[in-house]
Amino acid sequence: MAHEPEEDFRSGLMTAGLLIATEVDGIYLRSGTFESVARAIDVLVSAAGSDQNAEVLHLPAVMPRSVLEQSAYIRAFPDLVGSVNTFEGNDALHIEILRRLERGEDWAELFGRSDVVLCSAACHLVYPTCRGRLPEGGRRFEVFGQCFRHEPSLDPARMQAFRMHEFVYVGDAEGAVAHRDAWLERAAQLLGGLGLPVTAVLASDPFFGRAGKLLSANQRAEALKHEVVTSVQPGEGPVAVASSNCHLDHFGRAFGIESADGTVAHSACVGFGTERIVLALLAAHGLDPVCWPSNVRDQLWPSRT
Amino acid sequence: MAHEPEEDFRSGLMTAGLLIATEVDGIYLRSGTFESVARAIDVLVSAAGSDQNAEVLHLPAVMPRSVLEQSAYIRAFPDLVGSVNTFEGNDALHIEILRRLERGEDWAELFGRSDVVLCSAACHLVYPTCRGRLPEGGRRFEVFGQCFRHEPSLDPARMQAFRMHEFVYVGDAEGAVAHRDAWLERAAQLLGGLGLPVTAVLASDPFFGRAGKLLSANQRAEALKHEVVTSVQPGEGPVAVASSNCHLDHFGRAFGIESADGTVAHSACVGFGTERIVLALLAAHGLDPVCWPSNVRDQLWPSRT
Repeated sequence: MAHEPEEDFRSGLMTAGLLIATEVDGIYLRSGTFESVARAIDVLVSAAGSDQNAEVLHLPAVMPRSVLEQSAYIRAFPDLVGSVNTFEGNDALHIEILRRLERGEDWAELFGRSDVVLCSAACHLVYPTCRGRLPEGGRRFEVFGQCFRHEPSLDPARMQAFRMHEFVYVGDAEGAVAHRDAWLERAAQLLGGLGLPVTAVLASDPFFGRAGKLLSANQRAEALKHEVVTSVQPGEGPVAVASSNCHLDHFGRAFGIESADGTVAHSACVGFGTERIVLALLAAHGLDPVCWPSNVRDQLWPSRT
Repeated sequence: MAHEPEEDFRSGLMTAGLLIATEVDGIYLRSGTFESVARAIDVLVSAAGSDQNAEVLHLPAVMPRSVLEQSAYIRAFPDLVGSVNTFEGNDALHIEILRRLERGEDWAELFGRSDVVLCSAACHLVYPTCRGRLPEGGRRFEVFGQCFRHEPSLDPARMQAFRMHEFVYVGDAEGAVAHRDAWLERAAQLLGGLGLPVTAVLASDPFFGRAGKLLSANQRAEALKHEVVTSVQPGEGPVAVASSNCHLDHFGRAFGIESADGTVAHSACVGFGTERIVLALLAAHGLDPVCWPSNVRDQLWPSRT
């Protein structure tokens, strides 16, 4: 196997103890140091949205299966979804599980579909709480979410389990576009201010399959999704560290949400990828946060300076 | 339906906006206020273990399937496990998913067993990182874990997705017993100091099925598991808010861990149930943390006083 530049960064993270790999690609344990950076970023992002009077929501790692279906995420990204199965059996079926474990056979097929799935995107759980008529001005949420995306990779910037810190707007069409545009600028400013070489670019989602190519092209043509990208590893392509999206009335229709004037609500969200921002900072400033430039440290840990 | 006392507490939590229910019992969104208490408890628990020189580990919500199998958790608690299935299909199978969604049919059975499952207990992911010979004195870990247990319930103290903050010891037999006993006392002191009426009791795990009854009885006879329990709702039974357990050489054998003298390692862990502690505090001191007794507030938010 050729010696890839991403292997250098990855093995550096492991050697420094910042991440501990498991036997499944993209699933890591994180160190206290890694988390202290993640926590500091969360505080900075919250501060950047302190003018939003947002309702704060912390999400569980799983959500009702119906939310996945209603959001249409399962239609667009079936390959990324984690569907949770559980055991509803009795003693006899338990004995069969034990027998299969003994022989190294598949016990999981004795499990049946549960009513939950892994959260695919932080904001999806928010929309069902908005059903009905919105107040004048819409609603704003600050969301701490945990996501799962089934895309095993050795690239540490492509974890299967990761966090997303979002600001979500649900209201009218004009407000949604304004939210997306304002936050694209804020995100670029915040991340650029931490010494990351960032660029705002037009983007699209990796919709599944042949039909997905058309959806991606439409999304790009309508300029709905923008990303703040940066370089995490020399010689590698840019990685999105934040994403600001307008959903038009997609979620308003899907979850029965009306704006104050009775029309179908529009929505927009900005998502900061917590783990990716930590990794980008480690790549830009070195693997020991104690040695980061003081202007970066002062922003992340103001009280300690 | 009779008006249960737990309904009062539950609906109080909802009305106060501390928790937002979803359509799946035991899956909640949590408010910023709820989380500020959870965060403060984490800081207090960390401080209680500051003498441990523990390696800090933050866990993802999913873990390798092999860890579930090797830990034998799947043998003992199949009914609590969440097994993750994913889609490895092509365009044709995608079209079949869309067809089934259209008709309200089961699309999840087109998904196959993945190599991950939801984390069942925080410490399980720690043991695979200890394979081989331990240093003199063993190793100590402070673990921030996320757990899933399939036990749908309307009781807010029985969430399906919740956090566990653990201190884990892996070393020799004597050290494991000492860890369990020391932490049982520390946990009772810490939680009692927050004004919770706590008791330390002998306990056992809810092993599955007919064979499970024997395992529970053995565990109790060997006095391996102790819990710190408190009352969350008047008229309801006590709820465990912390649990201190000695595993003997169960995990040492399962994951090939040797103590410094070459014998199979023993382990012990104490786990604090973050959400349950928040709920117990809300039950004891009222639904608005701003109005909690000042000696409780001073401990949880020392810098603000």
